[in-house]
Amino acid sequence: MAKSMSLLWGAGSPPCWRVMITLEEKKLQGYRHKLLSFEKGEHKSQEVLEINPRGQLPAFKHGDIILNESVAACLYLENQFKSQGVKLIPDSPAEQALMYQRMMEGLCLTDKLNSVIYYDLFVPEEERHESALKRNKEALVTELKLWEGYLHKVEHEQHTHTHAHQCFFYLISAIKVAAGSYLAGAFSLADVIVFPNTAYAFRFGLSAGRYPKLAKYYSLLKDRPSIKASRPPQWLASPQGHEILRDL
Amino acid sequence: MAKSMSLLWGAGSPPCWRVMITLEEKKLQGYRHKLLSFEKGEHKSQEVLEINPRGQLPAFKHGDIILNESVAACLYLENQFKSQGVKLIPDSPAEQALMYQRMMEGLCLTDKLNSVIYYDLFVPEEERHESALKRNKEALVTELKLWEGYLHKVEHEQHTHTHAHQCFFYLISAIKVAAGSYLAGAFSLADVIVFPNTAYAFRFGLSAGRYPKLAKYYSLLKDRPSIKASRPPQWLASPQGHEILRDL
Repeated sequence: MAKSMSLLWGAGSPPCWRVMITLEEKKLQGYRHKLLSFEKGEHKSQEVLEINPRGQLPAFKHGDIILNESVAACLYLENQFKSQGVKLIPDSPAEQALMYQRMMEGLCLTDKLNSVIYYDLFVPEEERHESALKRNKEALVTELKLWEGYLHKVEHEQHTHTHAHQCFFYLISAIKVAAGSYLAGAFSLADVIVFPNTAYAFRFGLSAGRYPKLAKYYSLLKDRPSIKASRPPQWLASPQGHEILRDL
Repeated sequence: MAKSMSLLWGAGSPPCWRVMITLEEKKLQGYRHKLLSFEKGEHKSQEVLEINPRGQLPAFKHGDIILNESVAACLYLENQFKSQGVKLIPDSPAEQALMYQRMMEGLCLTDKLNSVIYYDLFVPEEERHESALKRNKEALVTELKLWEGYLHKVEHEQHTHTHAHQCFFYLISAIKVAAGSYLAGAFSLADVIVFPNTAYAFRFGLSAGRYPKLAKYYSLLKDRPSIKASRPPQWLASPQGHEILRDL
């Protein structure tokens, strides 16, 4: 099945990474893929435009079926390969709702990170304002604190829940709490969508001290096999402007 | 079931309208709802913040379950009430992929509309630039043309497909083609997400002459019972700045 799939991707792009993590989780290794360079403008090449008229990556094909929006591709892969690999959408109404909610909120986090990290790229020099960048940074801090709160709440609820139950579960859960928690119960599409953003944030200098829950979450997930197998190789080196989020 | 649901909404907000259309399509009428005023800042009230810490609408609850991101709420409602009302996610891989893809692309359309319609609201006076607004308008035109192309393609493919089949289907499809087409086969979540944007665009003066496919699409859907029943009552009057998209 994976042989009929192909992916054009760019290194370090959270949307590309999401699709790659999902392919790993669904045991769809062996798909064709090609790394393109944003720096050389290869995402605007004819090869990409034929699949993705927006000239963006990822550009993903399954046979003749095209999916370019990362969330769309992840939802499609999970629904088409439900019984293969890890189940990424929980069944219980409460967990499923939380999963969809955090997954979609993950796109707000992406936008707010981009509005700071790529301010100079998005905004022509003569239109730049210190006040605008300051406002973008404040909005990003508010956003990051929201996620700190979400992760705190997940840990806390796991703890409370199990405390009222049996000792065995208490123990298991205590280990989980110590290690950090996923966003909506077990590992899910919410993590697939949000994790690459948190990796991105720390790569650009976010302080683990000031965002301890996000740091714990990052540690919990960074060596997960699907994530390790798809980690952009270039990420081992420090990026340009890698301290841009240091003071947040 | 609908009795355990409640919705805080704002008139004219496409994200709110999406949730309301879905509730209609899934036969979940009878939910509690309360109209709040953006002008009076009621979306930043304690009542909203308790459900949606972002201080945005919609703020939706199903029992204790909270969903505030419109796409998340729509996905949840469709998945929890699959066999009730209209089926909003198609089963066939090709249609399902197209549905997810257009649904998520709908959010790009929302962003690009907002960047023009609300430029003055989002950008403080001392940071405004004619060049930035001009660029936002150009990006919106590119986006709208993309959707013109998508709608043209759907019509064309329906036509080609049925032409190769039986006369009966040809006839049915010819009627459909004359009336315009949905975004991904039958009416689906893609339409739920995108339609309120197109209604918004025409409400703010978009030219039906220059965007004939979008106009046809708007006509096809505007009187659908779920859409009519949930149309914000205020939309009968002309909005302030209602000609802002006239020259695009």
